[in-house]
Amino acid sequence: MKTRAAVALEAGKPLEIMEVNLDGPKAGEVLVEIHATGLCHTDEFTRSGDDPEGLFPAILGHEGAGVVQEVGEGVTSLKPGDHVIPLYTAECRECEYCLNPKTNLCQKVRTTQGQGVMPDGTSRFSMPDGTMIHHYMGCSTFANHTVLPEISLAKIRKDAPFDKVCYIGCGVTTGVGAVINTAKVEPGSNCVVFGLGGIGLNVIQGLRLVGAGMIVGVDLNPEKAEFAKQFGMTHFVNPKEVEGDLVAHLVELTGGGADYSFECIGNVNVMRQALECAHKGWGESIIIGVAGAGQEISTRPFQLVTGRSWRGSAFGGARGRTDVPKIVDWYMEGKIDIDPMITHKLTLDEINHGFELMHEGKSIRAVVEF
Amino acid sequence: MKTRAAVALEAGKPLEIMEVNLDGPKAGEVLVEIHATGLCHTDEFTRSGDDPEGLFPAILGHEGAGVVQEVGEGVTSLKPGDHVIPLYTAECRECEYCLNPKTNLCQKVRTTQGQGVMPDGTSRFSMPDGTMIHHYMGCSTFANHTVLPEISLAKIRKDAPFDKVCYIGCGVTTGVGAVINTAKVEPGSNCVVFGLGGIGLNVIQGLRLVGAGMIVGVDLNPEKAEFAKQFGMTHFVNPKEVEGDLVAHLVELTGGGADYSFECIGNVNVMRQALECAHKGWGESIIIGVAGAGQEISTRPFQLVTGRSWRGSAFGGARGRTDVPKIVDWYMEGKIDIDPMITHKLTLDEINHGFELMHEGKSIRAVVEF
Ligand SMILES: NC(=O)c1ccc[n+]([C@@H]2O[C@H](COP(=O)([O-])OP(=O)(O)OC[C@H]3O[C@@H](n4cnc5c(N)ncnc54)[C@H](O)[C@@H]3O)[C@@H](O)[C@H]2O)c1
Ligand SMILES: NC(=O)c1ccc[n+]([C@@H]2O[C@H](COP(=O)([O-])OP(=O)(O)OC[C@H]3O[C@@H](n4cnc5c(N)ncnc54)[C@H](O)[C@@H]3O)[C@@H](O)[C@H]2O)c1
Repeated sequence: MKTRAAVALEAGKPLEIMEVNLDGPKAGEVLVEIHATGLCHTDEFTRSGDDPEGLFPAILGHEGAGVVQEVGEGVTSLKPGDHVIPLYTAECRECEYCLNPKTNLCQKVRTTQGQGVMPDGTSRFSMPDGTMIHHYMGCSTFANHTVLPEISLAKIRKDAPFDKVCYIGCGVTTGVGAVINTAKVEPGSNCVVFGLGGIGLNVIQGLRLVGAGMIVGVDLNPEKAEFAKQFGMTHFVNPKEVEGDLVAHLVELTGGGADYSFECIGNVNVMRQALECAHKGWGESIIIGVAGAGQEISTRPFQLVTGRSWRGSAFGGARGRTDVPKIVDWYMEGKIDIDPMITHKLTLDEINHGFELMHEGKSIRAVVEF
Repeated sequence: MKTRAAVALEAGKPLEIMEVNLDGPKAGEVLVEIHATGLCHTDEFTRSGDDPEGLFPAILGHEGAGVVQEVGEGVTSLKPGDHVIPLYTAECRECEYCLNPKTNLCQKVRTTQGQGVMPDGTSRFSMPDGTMIHHYMGCSTFANHTVLPEISLAKIRKDAPFDKVCYIGCGVTTGVGAVINTAKVEPGSNCVVFGLGGIGLNVIQGLRLVGAGMIVGVDLNPEKAEFAKQFGMTHFVNPKEVEGDLVAHLVELTGGGADYSFECIGNVNVMRQALECAHKGWGESIIIGVAGAGQEISTRPFQLVTGRSWRGSAFGGARGRTDVPKIVDWYMEGKIDIDPMITHKLTLDEINHGFELMHEGKSIRAVVEF
């Protein structure tokens, strides 16, 4: 079949909107019509050429929602008409990782996903001239139709609006999940969140959901403060306005340090601040932000020996097929907010404008609707 | 009263054995006759002058065992004749730290302890000419008699031999406790221990105690291997004999990485190796070794985002008054070994020789008996 897609032809170039060829689902695969997709920093990381593992040409996008059109041989958990959210972290429920309750990093399709192909080693997408187009993060949601492995799809309720719940495919789950699954924050905990963008705001509403005590937001951009308060932030700190050392200021503000701190920027210096503002004896710092290639974090080991721990979170520690439908329910029940975070709606033709909005810091989430 | 002690008069000088003055216990304090004391690297760190916070003159030593001689006003949990192990990490059971189940770092006497004085701000020790001598780590076990806060003493059974259980005052508890309290290692876990000295061997026997799977020991000194096997090591790796990358070798040996790794050396490069050989998704790395002043650890944050966690352990995460008596019981019941680790017995007059043995890598533990 043919479908419309935004194709990344070369690193650093704008996406090109065009008609591409899409083969139907093979065994264990599912054809999905994408109704909406968010634009995330990771897409931009690859588009821009900063990602050393980026492959081109590719159809980017990994934050979508849509409807199953057709299922391949052997697919049992999904049928045409089911509403789904694509998962860049699959959940096979049978690999060594899925069977270990400590991780969500299913490895079943990881290698081929990293190579931009389906599990059988081939791509379903091609250019009008037949050139192969790479899949991206196992999702490729910047296309009106895409094919995914069955284990890379979370089945969700039918009354959930695509243009909102697509965001659960990455940002919402990453932020809320880091609080619930990775940190397992207890009610009353004092927490510090660095970076109040699309991820940080969701950490903040995750903290509100679990009844955290102080929820301190840290951002260089004071415009983020009003917005973050809506999601539960109780205190705002602008590093530019702090006299003296930011870490010492945060330790004092939280009465000894954060029980949990979260880095939602991707800046290795901030990652160190986040660790060091954690409470002696028990503070945990969770890295969510993705740093530039080759960058390193450092600290004195004494910080750890005196009881802080340094951890990270990928996709909020969530197991997609199990956890994403629950987060959709929480949204539908009003336990978490998404609507105010979707600051811009675009058509597929306007997708490059979405990346401009991201660079200007004007959007929390721009969503493309098909 | 007068007592004999090994006094560190100046940084970098051998200890001097002399008679010193000791004032009796004030309110909340206890006079203890020390029967045996181990020599630990931390004592040497201070004696040598490497410790930037070292105070002189001081009576070092923090790994002792002895008998209560006299108690000060208000002391209720101890009486003359009780057998005790001094604790460099107190347990007051009422500060914010003691009341938080996530930490063992009681803060009640921390500040004065760091200043080398008793909680009232004064020292009980003085030179024959009246010059004040600092206490050390709240213990000062390199003296035949010493005074400690009641909350810095663990009461132990009377049939436990002083020359063995003194080692529980630091090394044994640090190693075994890191496994049990900090890492909470599950049976069957594959583990890697870097450094097979006095601490590493106790990590190894802690791992055996909790039923770990593979127990891999890593040391540059092949002589450590035979000894470590006695305590439960199942595989030995000498980094000098590994062709190529040590981390890759350990990941392969453990079938994907260590569930838990322990750094028991104090080398920041090894701390990084210990983290990076931990299993993707769930591996935890615990820093026990104390690095030189100002040194830093580093890694790529991706190591954490993909599920490894970096932590530390002080005094094995043990709450001394509660946990040390249990570890003494385990020794008496044969659950853990100590005897073969006490490689040298010395008199107080020979104490400087003990530091030489340490430098030559010849002793696991040298113990001074009074
Ligand atoms: N671990 C995961 O699973 C996962 C998933 C998605 C995204 N991410 C990563 O999370 C990070 C955040 O993504 P986002 O979409 O929220 O980004 P964003 O650009 O929307 O937000 C970043 C925020 O940080 C602020 N900021 C920048 N530098 C700062 C500094 N030095 N101090 C304080 N504030 C500063 C900015 O003003 C902005 O508000 C990115 O690195 C992204 O790649 C990780
Ligand atoms: N965190 C705590 O509560 C605590 C308590 C006591 C001691 N410590 C620290 O633990 C550390 C270990 O103490 P110890 O008494 O066991 O020391 P040790 O000297 O007896 O043992 C260290 C071992 O490491 C080996 N080694 C040295 N460099 C190595 C390398 N690059 N690779 C592999 N092996 C190497 C040595 O051969 C030796 O066997 C010290 O830093 C000490 O200060 C920490």
